[in-house]
Amino acid sequence: MVQKPSIPKGTRDFSPTEMSRRNYIFDTIREVFRLYGFKQIETPAMENLSTLMGKYGEEGDKLLFKILNSGDFLSKADHSLIAAGDCVHLTPQLCEKGLRYDLTVPFARYVVQHRNDIQFPFKRFQIQPVWRADRPQKGRYREFYQCDADIIGSDSLVNEIELLQLIDEVFSRLKINITIKLNNRKVLAGIAELIGAPEKIVDITVAIDKIDKIGIENVNAELRERGLSEDSINTLQPILAIDGTIEQRIEKLSDILQNSEIGALGVKELQEVVAGVEALGLRATLDLDVSLARGLNYYTGTIIEVKAQDVQIGSITGGGRYDNLTGVFGLPNVSGVGISFGADRIYDVLNALDLYPAETTSATTIMFTNFGAAETAVAMKMIKQLRAAGISAEIYPETAKMKKQMGYADALNIPFVAIVGENEIAENKLMLKEMSTGSQQLLSIEETINRLK
Amino acid sequence: MVQKPSIPKGTRDFSPTEMSRRNYIFDTIREVFRLYGFKQIETPAMENLSTLMGKYGEEGDKLLFKILNSGDFLSKADHSLIAAGDCVHLTPQLCEKGLRYDLTVPFARYVVQHRNDIQFPFKRFQIQPVWRADRPQKGRYREFYQCDADIIGSDSLVNEIELLQLIDEVFSRLKINITIKLNNRKVLAGIAELIGAPEKIVDITVAIDKIDKIGIENVNAELRERGLSEDSINTLQPILAIDGTIEQRIEKLSDILQNSEIGALGVKELQEVVAGVEALGLRATLDLDVSLARGLNYYTGTIIEVKAQDVQIGSITGGGRYDNLTGVFGLPNVSGVGISFGADRIYDVLNALDLYPAETTSATTIMFTNFGAAETAVAMKMIKQLRAAGISAEIYPETAKMKKQMGYADALNIPFVAIVGENEIAENKLMLKEMSTGSQQLLSIEETINRLK
Repeated sequence: MVQKPSIPKGTRDFSPTEMSRRNYIFDTIREVFRLYGFKQIETPAMENLSTLMGKYGEEGDKLLFKILNSGDFLSKADHSLIAAGDCVHLTPQLCEKGLRYDLTVPFARYVVQHRNDIQFPFKRFQIQPVWRADRPQKGRYREFYQCDADIIGSDSLVNEIELLQLIDEVFSRLKINITIKLNNRKVLAGIAELIGAPEKIVDITVAIDKIDKIGIENVNAELRERGLSEDSINTLQPILAIDGTIEQRIEKLSDILQNSEIGALGVKELQEVVAGVEALGLRATLDLDVSLARGLNYYTGTIIEVKAQDVQIGSITGGGRYDNLTGVFGLPNVSGVGISFGADRIYDVLNALDLYPAETTSATTIMFTNFGAAETAVAMKMIKQLRAAGISAEIYPETAKMKKQMGYADALNIPFVAIVGENEIAENKLMLKEMSTGSQQLLSIEETINRLK
Repeated sequence: MVQKPSIPKGTRDFSPTEMSRRNYIFDTIREVFRLYGFKQIETPAMENLSTLMGKYGEEGDKLLFKILNSGDFLSKADHSLIAAGDCVHLTPQLCEKGLRYDLTVPFARYVVQHRNDIQFPFKRFQIQPVWRADRPQKGRYREFYQCDADIIGSDSLVNEIELLQLIDEVFSRLKINITIKLNNRKVLAGIAELIGAPEKIVDITVAIDKIDKIGIENVNAELRERGLSEDSINTLQPILAIDGTIEQRIEKLSDILQNSEIGALGVKELQEVVAGVEALGLRATLDLDVSLARGLNYYTGTIIEVKAQDVQIGSITGGGRYDNLTGVFGLPNVSGVGISFGADRIYDVLNALDLYPAETTSATTIMFTNFGAAETAVAMKMIKQLRAAGISAEIYPETAKMKKQMGYADALNIPFVAIVGENEIAENKLMLKEMSTGSQQLLSIEETINRLK
């Protein structure tokens, strides 16, 4: 039976060219993680469903990919649930395992499971794919990579300063101009306190987020619609009107929140973080965004979001401080701060701006032609010497027509071709052809090594 | 609800130390793959079950991890199968996707799906995890990595010679002494022809494989038990008695198989491959093993298996030539040859022989002490300069007791600690402590960079 091959929707194959580009991103992030002293871990693709379920909300539970139990999976199934067609309650009886949905929950599980072997503060990084049964659409995949760095077991703001520098370094190396938006969960708590409506904080941040698009009058109208009192809306006006440099904006926020203990603490943290990074120098643009609320129920302090300046796309990195990463697994009060690079969106940004260095498009430096057994034997000895010198080299494996061999080198962007025929062998040399110019030079293998290194 | 955290049986977490060691293996293999002109691809963890089912035999189908369909998965299920408890026939109705079982079938699917974009001959490598619902036991995991390199679209023996050199280079870099065992499927076909019992070829190879352990008499007894005629056993005797150097053994095999066309062709291929690699020089021991049959129904020419000389463990690399990789997906007659490095067994070998280079045990080169806000601000500027020079550096994030900070550096094998206190700041220097000797030196940041580079 012949099958027309395809892959599951929302997943992707990566060709050699795509892999070179993706590796460029991953290698850059990994190198900076290491430069900053983060240590890599990996966790299994499959986790127990009990580890994953209930951690991402009801919607998240649905988006988990579940692994059908092996063998007689029906034996544990409640047949009344089958009869009722109750897939939701049947699933845990048919499946014990699921694919990881993010790197945060497996990391929390890892920390608790290995807490006796971990040296705290623990600076860990993790670069692995995650899987979500989301409806696939442009820029949203069912398998995608996350690149996370977290420091846990330390509530010092030094960690925030370090992570902001790290973000700056990664995007500076990738040549992507970014704006880093900052906020602090305590500032949001202070605002909620100020207007006496803590349950409205999400409505408020959603509305504030629209100021640039719809203007302050429409924001106020929306707040009214969402049930905020006129008093509350009036109290919010100075916050909506904040402008100036980031220092000036924090200063104004400080005035507004001076009577809220938690709000004032949030402002103080923001000030310390901003002063810390500015003293060290940042290439990125730093911005205060009091509407920034990412994962509100999760973060407890600093909130970070990164936007590319030159491409219209969602946030390409995000993170923040949390105070109870591992509580659900029985280890309370572990404070940490972390960031997550969205490799797939960064890939889209680099593609849109065509920012890949030239070397990411070629795998092999030099291809040797194949004119038959005798020539090949000589060529392979030369190739061995080139490889020993660290130069990637290959021989066209078949004794094909010259045109075909050259076409192969051309299609694969191999910059140099070595022609080894009768004449070259007689002189113990090779004819080095530079593909971009077509120029040819008769060289010894030593000269070739010097030329290509 | 507090959960005691665990991971599914047969899976593993990898700690920072384990990751360093694993990366050393993967980086080595990846670097050599590239040096030889192989280009990386990646395929999704999930494939359509229709791609995977039937490719690994009935047993293999059972060992596939299947993903339960999202949403109302019961809607497509035949309730008479549920009533009958027929899990085998029910599975394809509940699951459309499965986790990849190896890298070969996804690669075949990839080649057919993207054949118009691929430049043949196609030299691809792929390093990704695979999943098998095998019973977990020592050295056998449910999630493990394969590192495959294949050349497809070329039947030249140059490819075999290249792959053998590549294997030699990888293990030479890893400092593992290896024996590369060679055989050829056509030689096995010739032997089957010779004894007139092609259906017994598996029995024969299994019996021959035991010669070293049980001796020739017991092998003959076993062959008799397995139903071979006395004639056949007599005909096999010269093959069982083959000895000498690999060239001598191939020569003897050549005599024995001279009347079998396919056998003689297999011998010729072996001769050409051995002569080719020996002309280039091989550090590994090369061995002819006519009992070598790995995946008999799959390979059609050269068969390769690698054993570690200094550790008792199964084969650590294997491969061979096949003639019909992609036929099942509608693209017939694609010849190729490939090898697969077993990263997890190589990891076990390196652990057993303790062959890891020292640098795989440490992540960060230098840690700065933290004596408070003022000292930290100075230290972070110094750290920035070190990182700009490519030296990995971190600061202890908390203002903790000196003993605790030093304990952290010690536990993480950080070789240098920089002490930046009041006195050092006054001199615009740092006190560099080498952890292995305890020696201390007052140095400027430039001197520190020179010392650590």
